[in-house]
Amino acid sequence: MFTIDIPSPNVDAINEVKMHWAKIDEKGFSLGVLERMIEKLAGMGELPEEFNPGMVLMCGDHGVMKYKVSAFPQEVTLQMINGYLRKTAGATVLARHAKSKVYICDVGTAFDLSNLKGIYDYKVAWGTNDFTQGPAMSEEQAIKAIQAGIDMANMCIDKGHNLLYTGEMGIGNTTATAAIAAAFMGIDSKLTVGRGSGINDERLKIKQKVVADGIAFNKPEPGNALDVLCKVGGYDHAGLCGVVLGAAARGVPVMIDGVNATAGAILAYGINPKCREYMLCSHLSSDLSHRKMLELLRLYPIIDAGMRLGEGTGASVAIPVLAGALKVYKKLIG
Amino acid sequence: MFTIDIPSPNVDAINEVKMHWAKIDEKGFSLGVLERMIEKLAGMGELPEEFNPGMVLMCGDHGVMKYKVSAFPQEVTLQMINGYLRKTAGATVLARHAKSKVYICDVGTAFDLSNLKGIYDYKVAWGTNDFTQGPAMSEEQAIKAIQAGIDMANMCIDKGHNLLYTGEMGIGNTTATAAIAAAFMGIDSKLTVGRGSGINDERLKIKQKVVADGIAFNKPEPGNALDVLCKVGGYDHAGLCGVVLGAAARGVPVMIDGVNATAGAILAYGINPKCREYMLCSHLSSDLSHRKMLELLRLYPIIDAGMRLGEGTGASVAIPVLAGALKVYKKLIG
Repeated sequence: MFTIDIPSPNVDAINEVKMHWAKIDEKGFSLGVLERMIEKLAGMGELPEEFNPGMVLMCGDHGVMKYKVSAFPQEVTLQMINGYLRKTAGATVLARHAKSKVYICDVGTAFDLSNLKGIYDYKVAWGTNDFTQGPAMSEEQAIKAIQAGIDMANMCIDKGHNLLYTGEMGIGNTTATAAIAAAFMGIDSKLTVGRGSGINDERLKIKQKVVADGIAFNKPEPGNALDVLCKVGGYDHAGLCGVVLGAAARGVPVMIDGVNATAGAILAYGINPKCREYMLCSHLSSDLSHRKMLELLRLYPIIDAGMRLGEGTGASVAIPVLAGALKVYKKLIG
Repeated sequence: MFTIDIPSPNVDAINEVKMHWAKIDEKGFSLGVLERMIEKLAGMGELPEEFNPGMVLMCGDHGVMKYKVSAFPQEVTLQMINGYLRKTAGATVLARHAKSKVYICDVGTAFDLSNLKGIYDYKVAWGTNDFTQGPAMSEEQAIKAIQAGIDMANMCIDKGHNLLYTGEMGIGNTTATAAIAAAFMGIDSKLTVGRGSGINDERLKIKQKVVADGIAFNKPEPGNALDVLCKVGGYDHAGLCGVVLGAAARGVPVMIDGVNATAGAILAYGINPKCREYMLCSHLSSDLSHRKMLELLRLYPIIDAGMRLGEGTGASVAIPVLAGALKVYKKLIG
């Protein structure tokens, strides 16, 4: 069991913004989904003058990687993390574009990052166990990883960030994402296993079998987030789940980005459904299970451009869009 | 007849960027549609370090307004233009957010704007004729309005803007847009008449009848852009068509925004199909005919958020997204 209190959003504040938009929209104006997002933000507290975004990039490795479920070897997790630190990775270029800070957290990579400067070291284990042979992690480990995410969220908020967002790195994580999505929603894993970063047909078959085997062996209970996480999840997912819960507990918005982060978000939703009220969604990923998970969370993305990168990139480009809507709202009611 | 030369894009440059993305994407990267846009841009000339966007906001009024096809009276065209000049309108707030300049052009409003500072006065007529009773404008007037758009595009390019985009204001213009879309594509106008800025069922019926009557009376020739424009178009559409042609003729990208601007873009495409190679698309509008027109132009939008405002707003929020992709490309190949 793991519980966390989350405040209720301020319905009056939401309705006030709704009323203002309705008046503005009477003049033929409509920013669609962006208007709904500004309403949601108002429910969390006073609308800020501008966003000060912080991205938590959760890193973890996956035991099922031994089955070659990804187009890439596990070492790429480490290479990418080095790219983030050098700020040469695409994800960090886009984060800078969004005027966002990036906080990289090792919650369960298979690599020793302890001597790398700029990594928040919350390592719970050296990657998950192979979930086709047993649970991916113990309940104790899962809770420790969730707590790491909560700590990261608290740190970001204490540093003054008023909008958090989620990034992830962990080669093989879309396999665990597909398993989490199928297990938590109680649907056939064929409906959730996608091509991730672009695997071929052969690897897709392996990935489908690995996910189906993992669910058949472990029998995770649909709707039971902690059970699903322990049995077929990843440390990156656990950490992201924690970031969402940590932000929501403090009443701070968290923008969910990409298919892996959304799997973390449905776990957070399973732990406390109220956290949904603090979620925003950046983009619709081209990976298979994304739309279904967003429907569960009743989240509407801003961008639909066939992006499939994760690492917080969708949010990095969506935040300037949302910032525009915030400016318009402030100006038109001002 | 109206013709304009448009240079062919540089296929080698496009392929070079394609190759670079393919290499980057091998590492699991994908920015989807944004990658295709950077390729397209490379075909137009050397990729800029950054965008210097300029929006041409074409204003014109519509003779069919006497049938109450809009939720708003014609005077709102004037009110909105005053809002742009005072920079209090949502569209100008968003343009500033995109670090864009706005150039407002009167190509055919029903109002005397000649003493307003900041208006480019290219007035061809005081609004179009009622197209249910005859053509909306003469061929001479249509060409004059197209030429106004070309002049505006040239002026923007001469001022140093390396990315143009299209905005429009003209109460009633989605009625003409629906007529242009149906007539040019030779499809039933029931498939193109939408709710514009949000009309009720009663006005929707009037709007459907007005568009059907206009097409039945004038019999515009499908695929003949100038014929369609004269018979059922608007001066704002003609001006926007000119902006697209003018930008393309100079090899400069033009981002098409919203359903009315897209109607202008299909007219430009009808005049010289090569202009399509210089078009980018900002967002998918919630208005009915937008997706069909984008399919004709093979344009893929970045944003899908139920926006239905026009006035260049979609592009103002999409440009920062595209700017992020440009930065990533420059950094990753650099």
